[in-house]
Amino acid sequence: MTERVGPIPDRGTGSGRPGRRPGPSQTREAVLAAARRLFAERGYEKTTIRAIGRAAGVDAALVHHFFGTKEQVFVAAMAFPFDPADLIRDVVSGPREGLAQRLVRFFLSVWRDPEARAPFFAILRSASTNEQAAAMLREFISSALLARVAGTLGLPRLRVEGAAAQLVGIALVRYVVGVEPLASAPEDEVVALVAPVIEYYLNG
Amino acid sequence: MTERVGPIPDRGTGSGRPGRRPGPSQTREAVLAAARRLFAERGYEKTTIRAIGRAAGVDAALVHHFFGTKEQVFVAAMAFPFDPADLIRDVVSGPREGLAQRLVRFFLSVWRDPEARAPFFAILRSASTNEQAAAMLREFISSALLARVAGTLGLPRLRVEGAAAQLVGIALVRYVVGVEPLASAPEDEVVALVAPVIEYYLNG
Repeated sequence: MTERVGPIPDRGTGSGRPGRRPGPSQTREAVLAAARRLFAERGYEKTTIRAIGRAAGVDAALVHHFFGTKEQVFVAAMAFPFDPADLIRDVVSGPREGLAQRLVRFFLSVWRDPEARAPFFAILRSASTNEQAAAMLREFISSALLARVAGTLGLPRLRVEGAAAQLVGIALVRYVVGVEPLASAPEDEVVALVAPVIEYYLNG
Repeated sequence: MTERVGPIPDRGTGSGRPGRRPGPSQTREAVLAAARRLFAERGYEKTTIRAIGRAAGVDAALVHHFFGTKEQVFVAAMAFPFDPADLIRDVVSGPREGLAQRLVRFFLSVWRDPEARAPFFAILRSASTNEQAAAMLREFISSALLARVAGTLGLPRLRVEGAAAQLVGIALVRYVVGVEPLASAPEDEVVALVAPVIEYYLNG
């Protein structure tokens, strides 16, 4: 991900306002830039909110205030297309009945939006050429996403990963390569096709 | 795919042998370079063996002699990891019993080899940033791969694409992102996990 790491703004000297204290949006950007750099250098797990604050020259409490949890800092810094906490709260924690359908619908709604899927495919591209980027993505997906889904549902990780592989494969075939008829099939038809597969993995 | 299109060797003047006729390996390379350029410019379907021969300055019969069918020229030019004709003959045309297991094993054997999967992920990366590359890959996958699998098995295309999405998703999670335990699971375990999904799509 090193190519997405922007410079940390020179606090207080930007925007032709020498001597002024940085505004909230400059500070926010400085925190995101520091986060991108640390996630790329140290990986997801070894990066702390405290270290991100220190690298951005702000208090850890301010990082919390701006973004919330470390997952949320990652989601904002990498433009990850959704917050895993939302997925858990809104989809996975709901009734078991209809869960497979809701999961497929949730991911179709995420990938449907080109502005949400583009950064995710950029992260995947980085991961396919750069082991550091792959490690960062792997750690984030493992601890923020898969472990929590598996824990909430009481499922073996391998089954959650089979389901994740099906969903990301659908995104690739439907949106990246754009193979017909899957590319243009109505969402209801895709849900009807794929939900039984997710059901199978969840009932393992 | 434009970044993978190499220059056509200057026939007869390379290798410090001015005036000599090009050897077979130079001609072979010239055909592959012409093929890469034409597939990228015109797409897979509109490119013909005849046009590839013309662009490389050789007879179409020589292109046939070197590579075989247009699919095989594409497989060689793009370093596509397997020949669709082999998949049809060795896997899809076999007995229906055990077909799902054979399909999963076939793809695991293809992706397992880093030298086979690297060019495929390079094509996928191109497709995710470049609409021309996406169109070329889409046409090849549609006509050389999915249409033939669907035809041989008498299945709707959408079901074949669901199965393809599952298989390519497994490759991404297992080999590109490398998420555990899927990344290190023995192949037999992956076959046991994924074959029921392929079975479901094939029994549509």
